[in-house]
Amino acid sequence: MTNLTDKELDLVIIKHLKEAKKKDFQTIAEELHPYDLASIYKRMSEKHKPRFLVFLTLEQTALLVQELEQKQQIDVLTKLGVEKTAQVMDLMDNDDLANLLGELTEEKKQAFLERMKNEESQAVQSLMQYPPETAGRIMTNRYVWIPRHYTVRDVAEKLREYAEIAETINYLFVIDDAKKLIGVVSYRDLILTTPNEKIENIMYERVISVTVDTDQEEVARIIERYDFLAVPVVESDNRLVGIVTVDDIIDVVIKEATEDIQKLSASGKSIDFDTKASVAAFRRLPWLVLLLLIGILSGTIISQFEETLEKVVALAFFMPMIAGMTGNTGTQSLAVVVRGLITRDVDARTVRRLFFRELLVGIILGVVCGILISIIAYIWQGNPVLGLVVGSSLVMTLIIGTLAGTIIPIVLYKLKVDPAVASGPLITTLNDILSLLIYFGIATMFISYLI
Amino acid sequence: MTNLTDKELDLVIIKHLKEAKKKDFQTIAEELHPYDLASIYKRMSEKHKPRFLVFLTLEQTALLVQELEQKQQIDVLTKLGVEKTAQVMDLMDNDDLANLLGELTEEKKQAFLERMKNEESQAVQSLMQYPPETAGRIMTNRYVWIPRHYTVRDVAEKLREYAEIAETINYLFVIDDAKKLIGVVSYRDLILTTPNEKIENIMYERVISVTVDTDQEEVARIIERYDFLAVPVVESDNRLVGIVTVDDIIDVVIKEATEDIQKLSASGKSIDFDTKASVAAFRRLPWLVLLLLIGILSGTIISQFEETLEKVVALAFFMPMIAGMTGNTGTQSLAVVVRGLITRDVDARTVRRLFFRELLVGIILGVVCGILISIIAYIWQGNPVLGLVVGSSLVMTLIIGTLAGTIIPIVLYKLKVDPAVASGPLITTLNDILSLLIYFGIATMFISYLI
Repeated sequence: MTNLTDKELDLVIIKHLKEAKKKDFQTIAEELHPYDLASIYKRMSEKHKPRFLVFLTLEQTALLVQELEQKQQIDVLTKLGVEKTAQVMDLMDNDDLANLLGELTEEKKQAFLERMKNEESQAVQSLMQYPPETAGRIMTNRYVWIPRHYTVRDVAEKLREYAEIAETINYLFVIDDAKKLIGVVSYRDLILTTPNEKIENIMYERVISVTVDTDQEEVARIIERYDFLAVPVVESDNRLVGIVTVDDIIDVVIKEATEDIQKLSASGKSIDFDTKASVAAFRRLPWLVLLLLIGILSGTIISQFEETLEKVVALAFFMPMIAGMTGNTGTQSLAVVVRGLITRDVDARTVRRLFFRELLVGIILGVVCGILISIIAYIWQGNPVLGLVVGSSLVMTLIIGTLAGTIIPIVLYKLKVDPAVASGPLITTLNDILSLLIYFGIATMFISYLI
Repeated sequence: MTNLTDKELDLVIIKHLKEAKKKDFQTIAEELHPYDLASIYKRMSEKHKPRFLVFLTLEQTALLVQELEQKQQIDVLTKLGVEKTAQVMDLMDNDDLANLLGELTEEKKQAFLERMKNEESQAVQSLMQYPPETAGRIMTNRYVWIPRHYTVRDVAEKLREYAEIAETINYLFVIDDAKKLIGVVSYRDLILTTPNEKIENIMYERVISVTVDTDQEEVARIIERYDFLAVPVVESDNRLVGIVTVDDIIDVVIKEATEDIQKLSASGKSIDFDTKASVAAFRRLPWLVLLLLIGILSGTIISQFEETLEKVVALAFFMPMIAGMTGNTGTQSLAVVVRGLITRDVDARTVRRLFFRELLVGIILGVVCGILISIIAYIWQGNPVLGLVVGSSLVMTLIIGTLAGTIIPIVLYKLKVDPAVASGPLITTLNDILSLLIYFGIATMFISYLI
């Protein structure tokens, strides 16, 4: 069975289900990863699903549920019934469970919590108190902690007991009597010492930790910097309350990057391939309507220059190009700044350097493109003044557009607003307006030479 | 020292350096993570750096070098001299070392390789044969493999020997006599069995692996899906040659997301806060020049409709709005599609569903915005036909713009071209042209009613 394709795997599983051969089914299921189990379940037709769920062990069901999208999770729980769901929930990772429960109605949530083991239900409820996207919310309580007076032998024994339920055994966190985090031992260190050695003597005391209210992006940054597999989470008094593991952090990194892209493109939050058309349209609409209204604003600006435009209709030919170029250079700067802000801390010196860098970039881009378009406009329209007007406008708009794409996200960042909300379209539209004002302003100044 | 701030830490370190107290220095250095060591080194003034490097052990120096940017790496190696550099290189992770060597001149590279241990130098050279951004290039050879006939006790002994140099001991990969990968045992499983158990009996046989030429994004997807801490890398004949670890994958995920954003915004590759202005401008320029030329194209389209425009100058007022809206909706779709393609496989059914979803989205957006602008244009310009022309144009351009932002990246994806090269600005500019054609086309058709 090691080399079965997905299709063959599906067929064998369904065969065992049809023939009600639970043992054969389990022989295969045992070898499968939760992701594979979930994939098979998703591909399966509705009629096979109930027995599939019956044939799974509680542990496998918990792992399966953790891999599903929320809608499918609810579907599985409904199929399982309240009693079995509570048992499955006892086995789920607390962070996954907190996410799931957070989406249910208060009534349903209480029904499940009441039937769960007291210990587990309290753990997940305490998790749910922390705001979303913080370390407290994404941490798990399935980690191994050891009292400071343990020897390596004691630890090895405790490990044997906890290895199965702990999410990671790579790091063992050492606590004092008040449950305060005082050290960490890697699993590797244990292997390399003698059984009678005291943990206190081999532990690292400089433990990097995060607090429950640390933003998940900051947690990701720490795990990424230090190449950690997990980072301990403490309350403000340094009491150890959980760990965040690297697999959750990968999800955070992907989610945050996707959000950045969605914001930069103003595509609205949480649209993926499965979002319904009406929902997707509804989420995208506010941005488009806003941009439409700003577009009207740029229309009124042009209408102010109607006289100029009537005299030299050729000015209209370069309008989209100038507005577009200004928008594009702004978007380029924006992308550099938004991603840069993610991967490093920004002090005043960095901002100053960045500002002058982008000013210089804007000047270089402006001069090169300005000269190019002057020549093209002159050749095309046979009017040197028009060439100069278009060219000098482009120089100015490119410099201003570049700086707008740099300054706006940094100001937002300093104001603790997510810089990515200064989305590409917003910057683009703002730059549209600035560029039209500059372009028609310069054209109006030189109108007598243009005709 | 556990609670020292960065500044205090710097001061203590420099004090020990000045007083040449190597032992005190090491007491601190031992507790520091490589990232911290590197941060201190970067903050330190030039005059202290040589002694800092002398005080570090070879292992610490290797870890430090791995945390530095390439320019700084070369600087450290120069300070160390060729002999010591070769020793440090012996201790570096092969993937990091391959990256570093890949940037040196052939001559320098050979000088280092000759002085390195034969075994290490061969390992890194074989790594460098694989193309960049593949599993082969980012894998490490510091993993633990075990022959199939080993018992748990044998493994425990082998582990004690290798724990220090292995990058991960979470997974132990089981191989047959031909070094072919036949199974995997997690460290956890070892703890939970008896010493005399044979590895063959407890190993998982369905091992998920990647081949040396698997793209690093695909490797990231597998690690993310399965929540792995590492994934084994095999040659095409299933011979085990390395592993890719999760910490490298986080870097891949961040890098790929940044690249996606840079491509989507056409900001050019590899621009960050430290890039020089001339370099950044040079990288951004090709895109802007290309877009400028396309902008000229849209100018020539408008010039074709000069007559229409001369008759109804008010048409110019709505030009930027229509072009902008079409570009924006295209960018929105593009962002959804590009990110969607990262997180899942796309079959014909998904594409069909997505197409019709976006078609519907386009229709909804078009109708809502079209009606809105018709009313605004009518009220503003007092011309119902103008309102209808602008409105119906917007309906059509929004539908087409939405579909363009969907279809183009998917077609590129199917052609095995990175869909993100269909950058926002490209889609925007393409949509500019389409929208101008539609807008002026419709206006020209109704010109007699417009005047």
